[in-house]
Formats: sequence, C-alpha cells, structure tokens
Amino acid sequence: MNSTGNITPEEQEKLRYPIGKYDRSQPLTEASLREAIDAIAGMPGELRAAVVTLSDEQLDMPYRPGGWSLRQVIHHLADSHMNAYIRMKLALTEENPTIKPYEEARWAELPDAQGDVEISLDLLDALHLRWVLLLDNLTPEQWKRTFNHPESGVTPLAMAAHVYAWHGKHHCTQVKNLREKMEW
Amino acid sequence: MNSTGNITPEEQEKLRYPIGKYDRSQPLTEASLREAIDAIAGMPGELRAAVVTLSDEQLDMPYRPGGWSLRQVIHHLADSHMNAYIRMKLALTEENPTIKPYEEARWAELPDAQGDVEISLDLLDALHLRWVLLLDNLTPEQWKRTFNHPESGVTPLAMAAHVYAWHGKHHCTQVKNLREKMEW
Amino acid sequence: MNSTGNITPEEQEKLRYPIGKYDRSQPLTEASLREAIDAIAGMPGELRAAVVTLSDEQLDMPYRPGGWSLRQVIHHLADSHMNAYIRMKLALTEENPTIKPYEEARWAELPDAQGDVEISLDLLDALHLRWVLLLDNLTPEQWKRTFNHPESGVTPLAMAAHVYAWHGKHHCTQVKNLREKMEW
Amino acid sequence: MNSTGNITPEEQEKLRYPIGKYDRSQPLTEASLREAIDAIAGMPGELRAAVVTLSDEQLDMPYRPGGWSLRQVIHHLADSHMNAYIRMKLALTEENPTIKPYEEARWAELPDAQGDVEISLDLLDALHLRWVLLLDNLTPEQWKRTFNHPESGVTPLAMAAHVYAWHGKHHCTQVKNLREKMEW
Repeated sequence: MNSTGNITPEEQEKLRYPIGKYDRSQPLTEASLREAIDAIAGMPGELRAAVVTLSDEQLDMPYRPGGWSLRQVIHHLADSHMNAYIRMKLALTEENPTIKPYEEARWAELPDAQGDVEISLDLLDALHLRWVLLLDNLTPEQWKRTFNHPESGVTPLAMAAHVYAWHGKHHCTQVKNLREKMEW
Repeated sequence: MNSTGNITPEEQEKLRYPIGKYDRSQPLTEASLREAIDAIAGMPGELRAAVVTLSDEQLDMPYRPGGWSLRQVIHHLADSHMNAYIRMKLALTEENPTIKPYEEARWAELPDAQGDVEISLDLLDALHLRWVLLLDNLTPEQWKRTFNHPESGVTPLAMAAHVYAWHGKHHCTQVKNLREKMEW
Repeated sequence: MNSTGNITPEEQEKLRYPIGKYDRSQPLTEASLREAIDAIAGMPGELRAAVVTLSDEQLDMPYRPGGWSLRQVIHHLADSHMNAYIRMKLALTEENPTIKPYEEARWAELPDAQGDVEISLDLLDALHLRWVLLLDNLTPEQWKRTFNHPESGVTPLAMAAHVYAWHGKHHCTQVKNLREKMEW
Repeated sequence: MNSTGNITPEEQEKLRYPIGKYDRSQPLTEASLREAIDAIAGMPGELRAAVVTLSDEQLDMPYRPGGWSLRQVIHHLADSHMNAYIRMKLALTEENPTIKPYEEARWAELPDAQGDVEISLDLLDALHLRWVLLLDNLTPEQWKRTFNHPESGVTPLAMAAHVYAWHGKHHCTQVKNLREKMEW
C-alpha cells in the first residue's frame, strides 16, 4: 500500500497474477508438456483441498479488492476448462478452426456462478479425468494441431496444454494466497 | 427386416430416432418449458440407472447396426450438453452470437470417447445441476434471447431447452431399447 | 381418511410401506438374486432422477404425516447402505459375525441429516458401484455366508441382497408417491 | 538397507509409519481439534491430487515391499473412514456403544478392493463432506461422548477425530513417499 493506504497498481497486479502472466515465449519441451498434463490432472484435487473447509461467507469474499469472490473463481474454472476442452477437441477434428471466445466477466455474473461450489468441484474432477485421458493419448503430430483464437491467434495444442496448466495454478494460488492472508 | 434379413431404411430410421426427430414447429408453452427443464434435470439419473449394470462388453455394443456403441452415446451426451450449456451462456451474455458447431462423429472417435463411462456420468450429474440452476433463474426476457447456429439458424433459449430435453430422451431411449431387445 | 378426516392406521401403513414389508419367506433363486443386484445397481440413478428437481422446501416435506422429510429419507439411504455394505463385508471375512445395529431414528436427527442431498446422492453413486462390484464377484459358497443381526437373526448374504434391493425400492417409492400426490 | 541388501526392521517401520504412529498421549486442545477437522476435510482432495496421474500399473505397486498396493490403500481409506463415520454416529446416539471392529487385511483382499480407484475417491469426497458437516456442529458435550473399541478401549469423539486426521495423513504420506522414491 502507498502512504494513503491505497493499493498501488503494482500491488494489484501482484494480487491478480500471483504466479505471473503466462509467458508465450517459454520453450515447450517434452518434459514441460508432461509436467503440464500432470498439473492439469492434479488441479481439481488441489482446488478441492484448498476450499473444502471454507464457509459460505468465506467463499463469497473477493480474492483481491474488487476481484471475483472465491466462489466465482471456482465456477469460472469449470466454465473456462469446459471451453478449453472443447477448443482442443475442435482442433483435433477440424483444420485450424476458429473458436468462439466468451465474455468471462459476464459469465461470472450469471445465476449459476452463485451456486454451491461442490457442483463445480465435481464437474472439474470428471472433466479433467476425460481431458487427461485425451491428452495422454495424443501423438506428436496431434500436439502440433492448432485452433485459431480471434484475439490470441493460432495456438498449437502443446501450447494450449501449457496455458491451462498455468491457468489452473494461477487461480489456485489466488485462493491459497487469500487463505494465507486471512489466516483461515 | 425384409425377406432377405436386412434391415429396411424405415427400420433403421426407427432404431435411430426411437422418439422421432425434434419437431421445431411444436408450440412452446410455459408448461412445456417447465417439463423440458425437469427432463434436463432428471436425465443424468435416468441414464445412470439405465447403464450402470452393463458390462464393458455390453457398453461396447452398437445401439443399432452400424451405430455408435452405448459407450460412445454416453460420452457424446457429455460432449453435446457441455456445448449446449456453453451456447446458452453465450446467448445470455452476447447479442445473438454465432456459435461454433462441432463434428460430433469425429469427436466420438477421439480417445476419451473410449474411456470409463462413470466419468461422463459424473460429469453429466454436475453439469446438469449447474445447467438447471441457470435455467431455473431465467426471466421471460432471457428465454427469448438467441444464439445463431450456422446450420440450424437463430435459436431462442426456450427452444434450445426443448431441443436438449428431447436430445437426452432420444439417446436414453436408444440405450433402453437395446437393453430390451437384448433382454439384458 | 375416515369420516373425521384423520388418516386411519391402515392408510398410515400403506403410506409407510408402499410396496409392502420385506417378506423373509420368499424363495431366493438365482434369477431373483440377479434382479436384486440389478436393483441395487440402478437405485442411485432412480433416486437422483426422482429428487433432483425438488426445491429445498419440497425436500423438507415429510413423505407421510409424521414421517421423515424427503431429505432425511435420502440421507438415511446413504447411512443404511453404508451399514449394509459393511455388514456384508464382515460376513465375507469372519465366521457369522454379530453386527452392530444402529438407531436409525436418532441418526436421522443428527446435523448431517439436514445437509445438501447432493452429497448423499454422490455417496450412493460411489457406494453402490463398489457394492455391485463386490456382489458381482461372489461365489455360490460366499452367498451362503452369514452375519448375525442381534434382532433379526442369522442372515445369509443372498437374503441381505434381496432385503437391500427391497429397501431401496421401498424408500424410492415413498418419495415418488409424495411427488405424485403433490403433483410436483 | 543392510549390507546384504535387505531392508532392516527399522527401515520397514519407517516405510510403514512415515509420520509415526498415532500418539494417544498427545494433548487434545480446541486448536488441535480444529486442525484435525480441517485435515479430515482436506484429505480427499490431497489424495486425489496425489494419485490421479498414476497408471493402473503404478497403482498396483506396493507402497513398501510386502505392503498393500496403492490401489488397496485408497480403497482401504474409503472402508476405514466409512467405519469411522459410523462409529462416531453410534457414539452420538447410544451410551458408550461397543463398536464392531473389522479385519482390514481381509477386506483388502475382497474383489471390490481391486476396482477403479476413482470410485473410492468419489466416495471419500462425499463421505468427508458429510463427516465434516457432522463434526462442525458438535457441542463440547458431544465431543466427550465415547464409543468402546473392543481392543483400543473407550474413545472420546475428540480423540477419534485426531486419530482419523492422523490416519488420512498417514496413508497419503505412504503414497507420496512411493511417488517420490520412484520419481513418478
């Protein structure tokens, strides 16, 4: 905080991106791909372990001033990863398909984003099992297949796997950081 | 079957569409919408009850000659309804968005469509809970919101709810009809 | 109801035992045992389909005047079937063990019997999958193994399977009958 | 290992009890009880995160020479914690009831202990949610209620909560230690 007690833009950025932004220039190796799949596999259990003891009041706290509530973060992960799974399957079955982005901020305001988090934890358990079953069986050629995101551009599946491994860790860290700060 | 023991095109059609095709001309009333939501809510339990006793061999049988295996039907329902849920949320957060169709026949050949059906049964349980939570909270204005499907055209949410109620029943009936025919 | 508008004891009995009491004298055949296992397998899906559309208010209605709420019935099924599963495994690993009964009426008053029904629906899904995996692999000799219930006496596993097939249907029918009566 | 390449009894003990045995003399405080409940709540997610990436071959490896396979450990946790939950509810509804122990080594040889671990992971998710709902609502008087274990003696619920928090961590650590040793 600065001298007037406000959060500086730098502090906001640190709260928002606790593990940094995804770095599209990082080299993608066979080893880093294996780690990315393992991270995708482990995420639902880690998220569950991180939030299962929280009360409804705690789940409704924002992870940072002005940010989503923990509840919205959890439902967002289910929404985002369903979209991701679908994009990857589109890339596997069509030639560089242009995928449909979604307005994540507006989705987080829909009524289902206020529901019981257990539902999205269960959804993530099942979704990531299917996702990993898919990823574990891709050939090197398939990892090079791409989808086209209207904003972020042509994305090979190998990069998408890294992005979503990062994305899961990104939000889990937001949750864990609030828990630590609040001493829950 | 005709005299040469083959299945006639009419019989194929009956096996494929056991409850008929979805009739886009049917009137959509408040009562039929309530029934559609209830059908979406009840589907995962009905599907589970219909398939849970089947062995892996039985799950790998096609529901009709030349058709998908029961396993593929179950995984298809998870895929299709994730796409449907996403389309409906797109319609709620954008103006008549053009949604991205998917090649369902190719998706059914991907490795995750050969996995344990329990995963997709769990996914459907959780997905439909969230879906119904969304649908139960829509206003009359929201039910009129639309997405644009490149092939089937502009679709209001009220119609989409009817279509997916039909779609769940359509595939559950395929499964149940095979069970009955095989006396499982 | 009688002329004074009260429910007669006979009507109470019919509401309480909508499919009758379990008949311990019924012959146990290989076919009836197969049916019992299938009924145990299908129960969680049927129960889920029957209750998933109900609101919290509806779930808190008693299934009959003075009886448990639907919510208590659902949590009772999870409690009862965990106990049943444990009893059957005791019988398979000890010689006619005397099992520990439980006070089901008091259990239904504990705080966890007021919780979200989705938890017990998930528990039943998983528990019955493990249970059926066990039952599907028993030898004819194992089906004759017994546990000793302090009140109901020595019970072979084959009879226990029939009892719990009945028990699931018994409570599902209570739930469905209230739905029908209330036109939910 | 000693000079002949065998594992010494001390090493065996360390592999078997990686966090030590439960110490019945440890003081039970309000803070340690809160930690115990949190540990019970977090265990299913931690276990899931630890095992979800493992192949069937890896799951069938013993956690120590001559010990249970990881698969058996996972199914044992579901069995053990169902028994624990039932014992605690017996203590809450009867006066110091004598509970029925079970032969855990024989249970681990039954056919359901060879099944898909996802089933027991799901069962643990749901069971621990109900369990924590129960524990979170106990009064100080209820925490003093007891069950009588024929071998380990009279056990207050507060101690039982500590024992099962230890028990979950005990087995999770066995699993994690094998992963680390094998560099999985």
